[in-house]
Amino acid sequence: MKTAKFAVLAVGVVSTVSIAAQGTKPTSGQTTQLNLMPVPASVQIQPGRLAITNMFQVAVRNYSDARLQSAIKRMMGRLSGRTGLTFTSGFAPDENQATLVVDCAGPGKTIPSLDENETYDLDVSDRQARLTAPTVVGALRGLETFLQLLSGDRDGFHLAVVRIHDQPRFPWRGLFIDVGRHYQPMQVLKRNLDAMAAVKLNVLHWHLTENQGFRIESKKFPNLHQMGSDGLYYTQDEAREIIAYAAERGIRVVPEFDMPGHTTAWFVGHPELASLPGPYQIERKAGIFDPALDPTREQVYKFLDTFIGEMAALFPDQYLHIGGDENEGKQWDKNPEIQAFMKQKGLKDNHALQAYFNQRILKILQRHKKKMVGWDEILQPELPKDVVIQSWRGPTALADAARKGYDGILSNGYYIDLMYPTFQHYAADPIPANSTLTAEEAKHILGGEATMWGEYVGPETIDSRIWPRTAAIAERLWSPRDVTDVDDMYRRLPIISIQLEELGLTHEKNSEMLLRRLAGSKNIEPLVTLVSVLEPVKDYRRGEQRPATMLTPLTGLVDAARPDSEAARRFSTIVDGLLSDAPRFQSYAEDVRQSLTKWRDAAPELGALIDRAPALGEAQPLAKDLSDIATIGLEATSYLTDGVAPTPEWKDTKLARLEQAAKPKAALEFAVIPSIKQLVIAAAELPSLKQLSPADWKARVKSLASPQSK
Amino acid sequence: MKTAKFAVLAVGVVSTVSIAAQGTKPTSGQTTQLNLMPVPASVQIQPGRLAITNMFQVAVRNYSDARLQSAIKRMMGRLSGRTGLTFTSGFAPDENQATLVVDCAGPGKTIPSLDENETYDLDVSDRQARLTAPTVVGALRGLETFLQLLSGDRDGFHLAVVRIHDQPRFPWRGLFIDVGRHYQPMQVLKRNLDAMAAVKLNVLHWHLTENQGFRIESKKFPNLHQMGSDGLYYTQDEAREIIAYAAERGIRVVPEFDMPGHTTAWFVGHPELASLPGPYQIERKAGIFDPALDPTREQVYKFLDTFIGEMAALFPDQYLHIGGDENEGKQWDKNPEIQAFMKQKGLKDNHALQAYFNQRILKILQRHKKKMVGWDEILQPELPKDVVIQSWRGPTALADAARKGYDGILSNGYYIDLMYPTFQHYAADPIPANSTLTAEEAKHILGGEATMWGEYVGPETIDSRIWPRTAAIAERLWSPRDVTDVDDMYRRLPIISIQLEELGLTHEKNSEMLLRRLAGSKNIEPLVTLVSVLEPVKDYRRGEQRPATMLTPLTGLVDAARPDSEAARRFSTIVDGLLSDAPRFQSYAEDVRQSLTKWRDAAPELGALIDRAPALGEAQPLAKDLSDIATIGLEATSYLTDGVAPTPEWKDTKLARLEQAAKPKAALEFAVIPSIKQLVIAAAELPSLKQLSPADWKARVKSLASPQSK
Repeated sequence: MKTAKFAVLAVGVVSTVSIAAQGTKPTSGQTTQLNLMPVPASVQIQPGRLAITNMFQVAVRNYSDARLQSAIKRMMGRLSGRTGLTFTSGFAPDENQATLVVDCAGPGKTIPSLDENETYDLDVSDRQARLTAPTVVGALRGLETFLQLLSGDRDGFHLAVVRIHDQPRFPWRGLFIDVGRHYQPMQVLKRNLDAMAAVKLNVLHWHLTENQGFRIESKKFPNLHQMGSDGLYYTQDEAREIIAYAAERGIRVVPEFDMPGHTTAWFVGHPELASLPGPYQIERKAGIFDPALDPTREQVYKFLDTFIGEMAALFPDQYLHIGGDENEGKQWDKNPEIQAFMKQKGLKDNHALQAYFNQRILKILQRHKKKMVGWDEILQPELPKDVVIQSWRGPTALADAARKGYDGILSNGYYIDLMYPTFQHYAADPIPANSTLTAEEAKHILGGEATMWGEYVGPETIDSRIWPRTAAIAERLWSPRDVTDVDDMYRRLPIISIQLEELGLTHEKNSEMLLRRLAGSKNIEPLVTLVSVLEPVKDYRRGEQRPATMLTPLTGLVDAARPDSEAARRFSTIVDGLLSDAPRFQSYAEDVRQSLTKWRDAAPELGALIDRAPALGEAQPLAKDLSDIATIGLEATSYLTDGVAPTPEWKDTKLARLEQAAKPKAALEFAVIPSIKQLVIAAAELPSLKQLSPADWKARVKSLASPQSK
Repeated sequence: MKTAKFAVLAVGVVSTVSIAAQGTKPTSGQTTQLNLMPVPASVQIQPGRLAITNMFQVAVRNYSDARLQSAIKRMMGRLSGRTGLTFTSGFAPDENQATLVVDCAGPGKTIPSLDENETYDLDVSDRQARLTAPTVVGALRGLETFLQLLSGDRDGFHLAVVRIHDQPRFPWRGLFIDVGRHYQPMQVLKRNLDAMAAVKLNVLHWHLTENQGFRIESKKFPNLHQMGSDGLYYTQDEAREIIAYAAERGIRVVPEFDMPGHTTAWFVGHPELASLPGPYQIERKAGIFDPALDPTREQVYKFLDTFIGEMAALFPDQYLHIGGDENEGKQWDKNPEIQAFMKQKGLKDNHALQAYFNQRILKILQRHKKKMVGWDEILQPELPKDVVIQSWRGPTALADAARKGYDGILSNGYYIDLMYPTFQHYAADPIPANSTLTAEEAKHILGGEATMWGEYVGPETIDSRIWPRTAAIAERLWSPRDVTDVDDMYRRLPIISIQLEELGLTHEKNSEMLLRRLAGSKNIEPLVTLVSVLEPVKDYRRGEQRPATMLTPLTGLVDAARPDSEAARRFSTIVDGLLSDAPRFQSYAEDVRQSLTKWRDAAPELGALIDRAPALGEAQPLAKDLSDIATIGLEATSYLTDGVAPTPEWKDTKLARLEQAAKPKAALEFAVIPSIKQLVIAAAELPSLKQLSPADWKARVKSLASPQSK
């Protein structure tokens, strides 16, 4: 793990880290900062640079195939687009003329596979870069690193001279996309596959069936997709297109057919599979629903055998996900025949009945040569050891399974639909530092998956819910465990985010587009200001705050807002700077004032905008809040800079107002209130500053302002 | 034409036009402003409004089919997205419950056709809207008008009570897209077809073959696309997909196979068709090139007969475009056998030889039941009268052809690739007001086409070159001739532009995306400021200014800049306001100063950005210019507001600096210089203000500042 630690340093938070290779004296003044995400297993930086000019060419040594060549062409297209350089000749006739030599030993697995070797070495000297990999997928991963190494200054584009040895920490690094609740067009999937490849994710977990939609064509049972999807489904040709597109990028596609629950959409066309007679309609609401497959009838298993056989032939991956989550068995309770079956078989509860069902499904999967993946709920003693448990419960549940010998992947902590900030996902580790698993047991932890549940995402907004946060999750799953510097992660994240836009991702650009639509105008500046300090409510509160069905358009203010407000993070930094300058309070005072003034002054224009745009009606109280909390912040700042403490009444009134403004409205909440609260408390605590050292005083302010002290 | 004039009033520039229906007294204070583009043939506005709520439903009367129902569903999706309303039930079980009744008499043509009836009537009362049309395509046009009528205020979303009778002025309203020079992915074509439908364009002219690329699969001669396209071509299935997608929207697809010139890419795989032996490679440069089909060999016609037969079967439209432009015959001059052939046949020059070629092609087209379309060059006495001439030469050439009995469409004036401002395209009329054509002759003028030539457009930029300007061209081709109010067109254009974003168009959002990529950062504010006052150079100067090949990435500053700078137009308005306030110079002085200060102050940050981003190197002189011209503008404004005239030296120095800044750099030019020049001249002319009336003085300033007086 020594090299791993070294790697952390190489991209560390200090912006002037100078890393010299072993045996080389650090050149004084030579500083290099890399923007790699995920951080490689090992990076050594040396002095020097490799210039990137319009003479750029690539030579391929040893093994080469269409997949590798396409990847190199795509990389060159992005390099050309980013630099503005025209590359006239693609592949170099001989190695000496090449800026980059790709030396690949062999094809690797023909179908992307869990045991694929993704290792690569990238050596950049001042005259050539050399990428060496045992497999094409390894080379693909290295090409992404090569692109991320691109840097520029007055002297032009270049790469730092580095020696990188890289390999993933975990072999299963996934993005789960739920297309059941909201269908996502082909191009959404494709651009997200491109983005996954850019941050070295290697599994698309395709959640294809839900209560709200059955999204895959079944030629055996066409009623499934024809009646269960509103016409929004993937043809088998399209599924093959996605599988091929993913394979081109070294990404596996694991399909999920959630059962026995989450199956309402199946029953629209096939009510005979359900545990109660029906009829059924496509579910339009979000939530947990009763319909479930009837696990007692042979007819159901015959159907599933045929269906799974069809899907097993369509999806080449070794694994097939059967869901298994959130079946509360309410339909089973109500069906006397099912109750009789349970009694007869000695199945004491619904859990036992589902275990019986899983055993039957397992046999079907085995017959079709697939290994089973399922959520925590499927875990039961009788399961064979090649089953994979996907844990929404957490690392402890995962470790327990690993101790029993089951493979597992972590999703708890990676629920990106819940709108938590990046650093929280970044902190979730499939094998945390305090893990007590033995090395052998730890091997069962295969990795993890970011889960993009589909209740509130449409084609216009899904990218901004996945990216850039998922890049940090990708780093957690690829990079050494001790790559945990949050500040440095946040330094690199916006850079990576912009690079993802090259792939057609809309996560950066669609927010203002949605605001223009809401306003019916291009003059959205005050609205941009408002939204910049707002975040969608976290956890499962959106549905409570702003009732919606699957037919509700995803074009509201909450859809234009994004998780993990950058403006709030910046504001928190400058407020921290101001408070650290106790007792003078001069540093950052101007920046703090500028931000607050901008927020305060947005209100009148916001009001005018809202009056003209009925779809913005829900922004009315937020506009008022913004003006008020900014005014409070300005007053507090004045107290601080003037060194005059406010009255206790002032403090109480303002804190009460902040409290009120902190309540979510329109499923949105202000991300800057904690910082403003700090300002208010700091002003109120000014008298105690005379008794305390500035540092102690600041600690006191922080503790008083923290949510626990409410 | 009385109703047409009425229509102009209804959307007129005065923002408080009150239109009362015949027989109804204008209600005092009742004002309505519509945002329709194109303006309908006749609009009558009455007091009242039809509320749009989540109870919105559509009923279909009389004829209905899948195309109509899909169009209604798409319309409802956009209505829902724009309003945020959830529509639970789509189609109303009976008319009385419907907010909109669509009453369609029949399907119209099964394949979109030149003689399709696109008429519709839209009557909106305060309790229901009724759309009546003889054909589905007529109903489609009316649905777009319905969506454009949506308006909102404090009381919610609604439509004005109106009576609209509408029909197009011209039956051929096209958008030409050149996919030969740069390939455009399927989704680019699809979203542009959606945008075309939104502004009632009805012909996609698909320029499929060029020197730089042969973009359509030929099963008969696969070498054509396999060797002539870098793998970037449309399969025949994809072509059918585009044709069907267009037909769904009532849009014809007219394919163009440009010949005998513009054929280099054909010859890569089929050199035997060329007039000189070859070998040939895909052309990478822009320009006019020598290679041309050999018009003297029977083998060539046999090949073309087979190829055109294949394409005639693929493309259902009655018309097929054979190009015919820009063949200078240089290869013909150099080939002795061709020279001998000409002598033998008595063909006195290359023009005659091309006429011979066209006659042969015409016979082939006739055999395959297609009518010929070609550029001006193809016009010759022997041609039958059902040929359509597409004129890049202008309305006079078109009128001449019409007098000879030929149908024609205008493209001169609609060359959107040349980056001219919208009002110039808007002024071009296929049958100008001063036309001397008889009514019978005028019928030969079928319409026009906006031409998106492909030298400098890629998937990321093409939308911003087409839209929103083409919406104004669409209005020219649909609306009555006297709809010519430029200010009102510019009032409506940004509203329509935002609506086009609903369809996935990227014309508004990709500019900042490209700037982020160039800067490698999200902090692009100063760059946005710079680009907002720049326009790409006009006419054919980009290639001179910034040499490029088809392999050059389209990601530079010029690609992020857009034609017809809105900031410059706004600045021109406030400068005009300031100068109109002579001799006080108080009105708008603050606005003018604010704009200029923002531009001046962008310079330091711009410099820092440019230093870090080599791809922005070319912006260096522009940043300097911006700072200097803004400073000049600020000085001039101070002279004006202080009522103090500058010295003649000051004036000369500043005008010289403006002159220098007006020179294009990096294929970009400042759009605000004319206004700043006005400020300088106005300041210098202050002494003459005492002798002249303010109006005369302003006229003098304008004339001195105009380009002619340089």
